[in-house]
Amino acid sequence: MVLDNIKQSNDIKNIAKEDLPQLADEIREFILEHVSKTGGHLASNLGVVELTMAIHLSFDVEKDHIVWDVGHQCYTHKILTGRKEQFDTLRQYKGLSGFPKRMESKADAFDTGHSSNSISAGMGYAAARNLKHTDEKVVVVIGDGAMTGGIAYEALNNASTVDGNFIIILNDNNMSISENVGGMNAQLTKLRTGNVYRDLKKAVTDSLEKIPAVGDGMVRTIRKTKNGIKQFIVPGMFFEEMGITYLGPCDGHNIPQLTKMFRDAKRVDGPVLIHVMTEKGKGYEHAERHPARFHSTGAFDIETGLGKKGKPSYTDIFSTVMRKLGERNDKVVAITAAMADGTGLRRFRNLYPERFFDVGIAEQHGVTFSAGLSLSGFVPVFAVYSSFLQRGFDEIAQDVCMQNLHVVFAIDRAGLVGNDGPTHHGVFDIAYLSMLPNMVLMAPKNKWELSDMVKYAISHNGPIALRYPRGEAYDELKEHREPIRLGKSEVIQEGEEVALIAYGAMVKQAYQAATCLEQQGKKVTVINLRFAKPLDTAMLDEVAKNHKAVITLEDHSLKGGIGSMIADYYATKGDDNVVLKHVGVPDEYIEQGSVSQLYEECNMDVSSIVDLVHSLDNRE
Amino acid sequence: MVLDNIKQSNDIKNIAKEDLPQLADEIREFILEHVSKTGGHLASNLGVVELTMAIHLSFDVEKDHIVWDVGHQCYTHKILTGRKEQFDTLRQYKGLSGFPKRMESKADAFDTGHSSNSISAGMGYAAARNLKHTDEKVVVVIGDGAMTGGIAYEALNNASTVDGNFIIILNDNNMSISENVGGMNAQLTKLRTGNVYRDLKKAVTDSLEKIPAVGDGMVRTIRKTKNGIKQFIVPGMFFEEMGITYLGPCDGHNIPQLTKMFRDAKRVDGPVLIHVMTEKGKGYEHAERHPARFHSTGAFDIETGLGKKGKPSYTDIFSTVMRKLGERNDKVVAITAAMADGTGLRRFRNLYPERFFDVGIAEQHGVTFSAGLSLSGFVPVFAVYSSFLQRGFDEIAQDVCMQNLHVVFAIDRAGLVGNDGPTHHGVFDIAYLSMLPNMVLMAPKNKWELSDMVKYAISHNGPIALRYPRGEAYDELKEHREPIRLGKSEVIQEGEEVALIAYGAMVKQAYQAATCLEQQGKKVTVINLRFAKPLDTAMLDEVAKNHKAVITLEDHSLKGGIGSMIADYYATKGDDNVVLKHVGVPDEYIEQGSVSQLYEECNMDVSSIVDLVHSLDNRE
Repeated sequence: MVLDNIKQSNDIKNIAKEDLPQLADEIREFILEHVSKTGGHLASNLGVVELTMAIHLSFDVEKDHIVWDVGHQCYTHKILTGRKEQFDTLRQYKGLSGFPKRMESKADAFDTGHSSNSISAGMGYAAARNLKHTDEKVVVVIGDGAMTGGIAYEALNNASTVDGNFIIILNDNNMSISENVGGMNAQLTKLRTGNVYRDLKKAVTDSLEKIPAVGDGMVRTIRKTKNGIKQFIVPGMFFEEMGITYLGPCDGHNIPQLTKMFRDAKRVDGPVLIHVMTEKGKGYEHAERHPARFHSTGAFDIETGLGKKGKPSYTDIFSTVMRKLGERNDKVVAITAAMADGTGLRRFRNLYPERFFDVGIAEQHGVTFSAGLSLSGFVPVFAVYSSFLQRGFDEIAQDVCMQNLHVVFAIDRAGLVGNDGPTHHGVFDIAYLSMLPNMVLMAPKNKWELSDMVKYAISHNGPIALRYPRGEAYDELKEHREPIRLGKSEVIQEGEEVALIAYGAMVKQAYQAATCLEQQGKKVTVINLRFAKPLDTAMLDEVAKNHKAVITLEDHSLKGGIGSMIADYYATKGDDNVVLKHVGVPDEYIEQGSVSQLYEECNMDVSSIVDLVHSLDNRE
Repeated sequence: MVLDNIKQSNDIKNIAKEDLPQLADEIREFILEHVSKTGGHLASNLGVVELTMAIHLSFDVEKDHIVWDVGHQCYTHKILTGRKEQFDTLRQYKGLSGFPKRMESKADAFDTGHSSNSISAGMGYAAARNLKHTDEKVVVVIGDGAMTGGIAYEALNNASTVDGNFIIILNDNNMSISENVGGMNAQLTKLRTGNVYRDLKKAVTDSLEKIPAVGDGMVRTIRKTKNGIKQFIVPGMFFEEMGITYLGPCDGHNIPQLTKMFRDAKRVDGPVLIHVMTEKGKGYEHAERHPARFHSTGAFDIETGLGKKGKPSYTDIFSTVMRKLGERNDKVVAITAAMADGTGLRRFRNLYPERFFDVGIAEQHGVTFSAGLSLSGFVPVFAVYSSFLQRGFDEIAQDVCMQNLHVVFAIDRAGLVGNDGPTHHGVFDIAYLSMLPNMVLMAPKNKWELSDMVKYAISHNGPIALRYPRGEAYDELKEHREPIRLGKSEVIQEGEEVALIAYGAMVKQAYQAATCLEQQGKKVTVINLRFAKPLDTAMLDEVAKNHKAVITLEDHSLKGGIGSMIADYYATKGDDNVVLKHVGVPDEYIEQGSVSQLYEECNMDVSSIVDLVHSLDNRE
C-alpha cells in the first residue's frame, strides 16, 4: 500500500509521482471503508482527494495556513497529516473530529464547521503575516455553495486590501448540500463552460489586431482602460471586479494540472482565486449518483449504499405536516437556506414549487425575505438548523420581532446533535431568541405535538419559533394531547415533593426518570413546559406551592435557557422557598459523541436525573 | 412656498414641472432648519432630495412598496407623505421617528435602521406580489456603503430568481458613514467614470461590424454567447453577472433624468439596478465639506455649522486609550466596520495605519478576520456599536469563543442610545454574549475605569468584551479605582439592608440614588459589578448574607442581563432569602427619546430607584 508510507505531514512529498493515482485510490477506499462504519461526510470528501493531495504537495501544511471552509471535507487532509490511525474513532466520543481542529494538529489552521467564513479567517492570517514580515502562504478552500453566504462576500470585498499572496481555492462541485441557487451559481456555470471565453478572447484580440485603422489603436485603448479588456477576456469577471486575480477553471481530479496552477498562484502578489472543478462523491457510484444523500450519512452498506432506516425523525414528521398545510392553506410559504433535504422541505417544494424558496446558504437574507413575505399576508415558515440560524440573529431582532411580524421559525437540530460536535450543537437558540420582544418559543415533547405546534404557529399572529432535535421522533405519551394554548404547559403526571419541568426533547427524559422513580416508590410531578416564552407563570406558582423542589430540564445551555428564566421568575417573585435545580448543557463547548453519551456527560441522562432527585431527599 | 401645496402622498404629482427645483430648495431649507434644532441625519438627507422627489413622481408610494435601506435618509420621503407638520418632534420622545415606520404612514413599507437588508425585504414583497398576481412595483433604495454588507449580497445573489419587475436604486455618494472600502467601491468608482465604457462599447461594436470577414460573424458569435458581449459593453458587469439589469450611472440631482430612468426601469421584466450618483450634504456648504461630521449630528448653528461641545464622551476616552496602547504595544491592531469616526478609532488609524483595518459595513467579516489576526499573535480590538455587533453573533460564537481566541470587543453605544430609537438601542449585548462559553464581559462605571478595562482586556488571554454607552463619560467616583481583577466587583459604598448592584452606566444612577437616600437618612450599599461574566459570586454571597434586599441595575434588557444571571445564581444556590428586584429595560422595543426620558419610562431614573428602595421598606 502506498498509503502505508504516509505517517505525517509532508510525507506525501516523498511519494513517486507515478504512485499518486494509486494513493488517491487507496485514500478513497480508506475513507469509504471508514465512513461506511462510523458515518460522516462522504460525498464531499470523495470529491477533494486529488485537490487535497495537490495542496499537500504544493504547500507546507504545518508552516503555511490552510483554512478549510465548513471543514467537513477535511478527511484526506487528516489522513495526510498523521491521523490515519485514528479514523476508527472518527466523529466518535473522544475520537477524531469530523472537522478541522487546531488541538489535533498543527496542520489545522482554523476550527470550522459553519460555512463561508474561511476567507475572513485566511485574511486575518494574511494581514498578520504582512505585519510580521514573514513569508508563509495562506490558502483557503471554499466550496461554491459556501460562496452564497454573505460573510464570504464581505471578505471578498475586502480581499483586494490585503497585500501579498493570498490564495482562495474555489472547490466547485455545483452543489452546496443540495443544489445551488442564485446568481453566483449561474455565474459559475458560465465559467465551467470556459472554452467559449477562451475562444472568444483569442478571436477578438486577433481580429482587433488585424484591423489596421481601428484595430491597433483600439487594442491600445482597451488595454489602457485595463479592466475593460480584462472583463472581456478573462473568465471570472465577478472576481476580477473585486480585485481578485482569477485562474481556471481547472480539473480538480488532475494532480499535475492542480500543482501547476498552485505554482502559478503562488507567484501572484495579491489575492488570487483558483477555480477548481470537482465531482462530489467521485469514485463511489452510489455517492456520485446521490451526492445529497451521501453528504452526511450514518453507517451504511458499501455494496448497496443503504443505511439502516429507523423510526421517523422529527424532520420526517415536519415534512409531512408541511405537505398537508401547503395543501390546506395557500398562504403558507416555505423557506430554506440550502437545506431542502435536511429540513424535510423537499416534498413541499415538489408539490408547491411556487411557494417554496431555497435562498442558498444565506440565513440573513432568508429571515428578512420572510419578513417581506409576511408583510404581504403570507405565512413564511423558515425551516433551519438551530446553530445555522445564529447567522440570522440580527435580522430576527430587527426585521421580524421589532415589526412583530408573523414569521414561523421551524428550528431543526435543536439541542445536542451528536457526532457533528460543537459547531453543530443547537444549544443557544432559546437564549438568543427569548431576549427578543414579541417572540414566542415552543418545543414539542413528541411527534404528535410537533404537528400540533406547527399548526399552532401558522395560526399565531407574530414571530414564533419551535425547536426539535435531530433524530427519531419520540412516539410515546400519545394520550397527552391537550390543545396548544399560548404560554400554557401540560401536566404529564402529578406527583409529590419534586416537580420536573421539562422542555421539548427533555420531556422524554423526565418521563423516563419519573417512571424509574415510581418503581422505586417515589412519584414525582412531570410537566411538559411547551412554551419557553411566554412562561406559564400560573403553573410555576402552583408547582412552587405544592412541591419542595423544582428541577428544570432542557436540551440547551444553562445560560439563558428555560432554567434561568424560571429561576429569574422565582427569585424576583420572592415569596416561594422552593429548591430549584437545573438540568441542561453546562457553560462550555461540548464535543462530539452520540447524543446519549453527551447526555451522560452533561448529566442529562435518565440515571443522572434520578440521582439528582434522590440527592434532594438526602439534603433534607 | 411650493412646499405648502404638499399635504399628503402623491401631492407632488400636481406640482408644475418648472416648480420642482424650487420645491427641492425649499425641502433642503426645511430639513436644514429642523435638523439644526432637533439633531438628526443631515448629510444623507440633503443628498437624496431630488432622488426622493423623482421616486414620488414616478411611483404611487402608498400602493407600491418603497423600502429605504438603513432609513436615516427618509426625511424628504416623510415631508412628501403628510408628515411635514410633525418635523418639530423629529427624533424626540413620542415624536416623529428618524427612520421609516409603518405605524406612521402607509407609505413606509418596512421599518429599517440597520444597513443592507432592504433588497431582502423588497424581494419578499416582490415574491408575494407574484404569488398574488398583483402589479404593484417594489423599489428599494440602498446606498453604496450598505452594499458592502453580506446580506445585501445574499439578496443580490437571489435577485435573479424573482420574477417580474423589481427595482433596486443604488444611491451612490461614494461614502458609507465614513469613506467606503473594498472591491465594491473600486468597482463603483469605475462605473462612475462611465464614459470610458460607453465610448468603448460604441467603438467596439462599430468596428466589429465594419470588419467584413471576422466582424459580422464575430458579432453574431458574441451575441450568441450573450453574456460575453454584455460584460464588454455594459458597465455594471458585477450586477449583470448576478442576473440584474444595470442602468446608469445617472445624475441623482437631475429630476427629469431620474424620472426617465425610472420609466425605463419599470419596463424591465426582472431585477433592475439603477445607479444614481448623489452628493452627500448637497446644498449646505458645511455638510458638503464635512459629510462624515454631518452624518448624524446634534443641534448646531446653521451659520457656523458648529454644535455644542460637551464633556468628553466614552468614545473620546476610548480613542485616547487606543492611541496610547497603539504606541506601547505593537501587537495591538484595531478593526472597525465603517465607523472610524463613530468609534473613535480615527486617531489610531492616522498614527498606525498598517495596524488599522476598516472592513466596511461587514461585521461578520470583521469578527472572523479578528479571529485570524488573533491566531497569529496579534491582539485585535474590534470597536463596534452594540446593536450592529448583533450581525456578528454567529462568528463570535463559532470563530472566536469556540476557539477561545483573544479578541477584544469594544462595544460602544451600549444601552439606550436615545433619539435613534429601537433599531439602535444596544440592549441585548450582555444576553447574546453571556451565553457563549469562554467569553468575559465587563462594563466601566466612569471614564477612568473605561481606560483601565481596555488595558485589562488587552492583557487578558481570551474573548473579552467591554460595553459603554453613547454620550458623556461619567467623571465622578474617581477615588474608586481598584485594579481590575477577573470577575471581581468593587464596593462603592457600604450600607445596610439594601444593596444596589449596578453594571456600567448604572453605577452612576445607583450612586446618585444612594446619595439621595442618604440625605433621607437611609444608607444603602452600592456595588460596581464590573464583570457580568464571570459573576462575582463571593460578593453575591456576602451581600445576601448582610442585606435584606438586592436590587440589580443595568442599562440592558431584563431578559438575559445581569439581573437574570444574578437571580439564577441566588435561586439555584437556594439557601438565601434575600429579596431580589431588577432595574433595567423591559421586554419590549423601546422607542426614541432622550436617554433621560427613556430611563424614566423604564423606571431606571434616580427617582424611580429611590422609590423602589422605599417600596421594599413598606413591604416589610
